[in-house]
Amino acid sequence: MAHLSSRPDLVARVHRIAGQVAAVEKALAADEPCATVLHRVAAVRGAVNGLLDEVIAEHLKEHVALPGLGDDERAAGAEELLAVIRRYAK
Amino acid sequence: MAHLSSRPDLVARVHRIAGQVAAVEKALAADEPCATVLHRVAAVRGAVNGLLDEVIAEHLKEHVALPGLGDDERAAGAEELLAVIRRYAK
Amino acid sequence: MAHLSSRPDLVARVHRIAGQVAAVEKALAADEPCATVLHRVAAVRGAVNGLLDEVIAEHLKEHVALPGLGDDERAAGAEELLAVIRRYAK
Amino acid sequence: MAHLSSRPDLVARVHRIAGQVAAVEKALAADEPCATVLHRVAAVRGAVNGLLDEVIAEHLKEHVALPGLGDDERAAGAEELLAVIRRYAK
Repeated sequence: MAHLSSRPDLVARVHRIAGQVAAVEKALAADEPCATVLHRVAAVRGAVNGLLDEVIAEHLKEHVALPGLGDDERAAGAEELLAVIRRYAK
Repeated sequence: MAHLSSRPDLVARVHRIAGQVAAVEKALAADEPCATVLHRVAAVRGAVNGLLDEVIAEHLKEHVALPGLGDDERAAGAEELLAVIRRYAK
Repeated sequence: MAHLSSRPDLVARVHRIAGQVAAVEKALAADEPCATVLHRVAAVRGAVNGLLDEVIAEHLKEHVALPGLGDDERAAGAEELLAVIRRYAK
Repeated sequence: MAHLSSRPDLVARVHRIAGQVAAVEKALAADEPCATVLHRVAAVRGAVNGLLDEVIAEHLKEHVALPGLGDDERAAGAEELLAVIRRYAK
């Protein structure tokens, strides 16, 4: 969707997460200490949460709150968001 | 650490997560709908949480509960675990 | 706010959570097993998350997506929601 | 369990949470703004997470890492903890 791909910071965030996941793979392959792996996986989790917050914020602004949207569009955007929040917030 | 790298299921989990993150990158680059990106990122989050649970379980068994460990080793293993849980559970 | 207080299911949820928290207090006072306390606290957490999801859903529908709101009202409602999600989703 | 009830800070935490939940009930009954309710519920969530972390830490120290426990006791303590973490970390 144009409003996401036009945000280079989001693309960069996802790219960084890919690097963090690759580092976890390497740590496992290199038999690094368990505590190191734990912290790397926890760091990935934090980065993914941060990304999800940003995508949620974008969705909320563009598909629910944006001036000029139709009532049905807003309702649909809100439903999509709630579906993810309910899944995400468990 | 041998006990992690000897678990092919963990290695496979991390590899799957790498694939999921790559799919998010592609979805952004291809201007896929915002709701699609949302669900993919939420799926990554679920997978990372599942991985972290497994690594925590391994750490707990091998570095805290394992028969034959010294008292200091157990205390150190417990501290490492708590550091991650406190960070993770926010 | 009228739209929340007019939802008896939300009021009932909060009341149930108050009862669950009272049960944790009693379990501590009665020296119940640690595992019992753990499960009770985890149950409170699940119930609070469910409540928060419902309040978020209400806010989204009434203060962001509702037909007839002004652009500024929607923007303000979205900002309030994002502030909580960012805090909540850590 | 003695090791929990002998920690007045935990008892005080649970008591504070009970007060926070009561405040949410009052906010609903008083038709306070939705954003106020949102923040109060999010605050309860944070406090419950903090409590759960503390109870997990206690359990880990007393039922898994404690010097002098039998191997079976440690294994049982670890299993109880993992059951809660898996439920909690979703």
